Amino acid sequence: MKIQVVESVLKANDAVAHENRRRLDRAGVRCINIMSAPGSGKTTLLEKTIPALLPDIRCAVLVGDLQTTRDAERIGKLDIPVVQINTGRGCHLDATQVTSGIAALDLRGIGFLFIENVGNMVCPAGFDLGEHARAALLSVPEGDDKVAKYPTLFQPADIILLTKVDLIGVLEYCMDRVREDLSHVNTRAPLIEFSSKTGQGMEQWLSWLRSQKR
Amino acid sequence: MKIQVVESVLKANDAVAHENRRRLDRAGVRCINIMSAPGSGKTTLLEKTIPALLPDIRCAVLVGDLQTTRDAERIGKLDIPVVQINTGRGCHLDATQVTSGIAALDLRGIGFLFIENVGNMVCPAGFDLGEHARAALLSVPEGDDKVAKYPTLFQPADIILLTKVDLIGVLEYCMDRVREDLSHVNTRAPLIEFSSKTGQGMEQWLSWLRSQKR
Repeated sequence: MKIQVVESVLKANDAVAHENRRRLDRAGVRCINIMSAPGSGKTTLLEKTIPALLPDIRCAVLVGDLQTTRDAERIGKLDIPVVQINTGRGCHLDATQVTSGIAALDLRGIGFLFIENVGNMVCPAGFDLGEHARAALLSVPEGDDKVAKYPTLFQPADIILLTKVDLIGVLEYCMDRVREDLSHVNTRAPLIEFSSKTGQGMEQWLSWLRSQKR
Repeated sequence: MKIQVVESVLKANDAVAHENRRRLDRAGVRCINIMSAPGSGKTTLLEKTIPALLPDIRCAVLVGDLQTTRDAERIGKLDIPVVQINTGRGCHLDATQVTSGIAALDLRGIGFLFIENVGNMVCPAGFDLGEHARAALLSVPEGDDKVAKYPTLFQPADIILLTKVDLIGVLEYCMDRVREDLSHVNTRAPLIEFSSKTGQGMEQWLSWLRSQKR
């Protein structure tokens, strides 16, 4: 009984997600859903990425958070369209919230719509939002066991960014363990070792993004 | 309609949690539910805490994870009773899972039962498991904005541990911001600045634990 409820919610979500994707396709917008645990560096990644894509590609952002508009304020400083979606107690964004977010945006001239999902390694992965690709982040300080422990986030990812790699010298971290775990979970997605401090991995990430643009 | 389903699930959970607590009370076991984002240091905290409480207080642990038994294996090395609860795609532990976990434990002589919840700053906070107290962890590398962004985790916490404070020198981190945010969310719970590397905060944490024992 309970499972039936969940399934019907997911089916309804998928239908709305499909409509979101169609709407974005018509507008020529590519949508990237960015997912990770809290504090893995999603907002910082966007703060670095969006100026680097300008002036040839203009971006917009939907930011999901339980409360506060802090992330949207950070990204708003880049002078691009940003919509904050506050989920209250909700642990993930769903497609209907994204529909509302898109409706609040002027999509003309936008090349990429980034969705910064709620910081959570579990629930967001279950909800198609209408994106074209999924980026999963994991950060070095979270420890080298996260791919094995949260495979549902990494399995459907189209690209995986290991963030804060500048801390590898400070912390004990076994890259081989991450690669070994990924070999069981997802061998399709590129793995980028990334640092917003040193710039490591930035070119690889930007190249991947440009390859997603039609 | 959807909200009614959620409410009935939560009510059923609360009834089971109440029974768990009664059972633990009869056995003289105090139960601490430990919650945080992935990689904040829950397992490491237990690895340090449990030997420090011995020999006068014996502990047992229930470990919640989507998959793998890695955390249970780490804690099992301490030669104490440990039960791993794998939730599959489940984003939190619920009271019924804890009932099963308790049933698999011999509670005789146990002073503390620690529950290491699934790494998630959102969903676990909504589910009473039958614990006597809640410990919420946030780690320095996650950034100083997490209390404001995930208030539902910190509001019901009985104690809050800021972990990995040895990294404050390496990262930009504003303790005043954390204290200011906590002043709006929870002024009841002690805040302990903790480092499993340097031992900072360990005595304060152990004192708090001992104060919870009846």
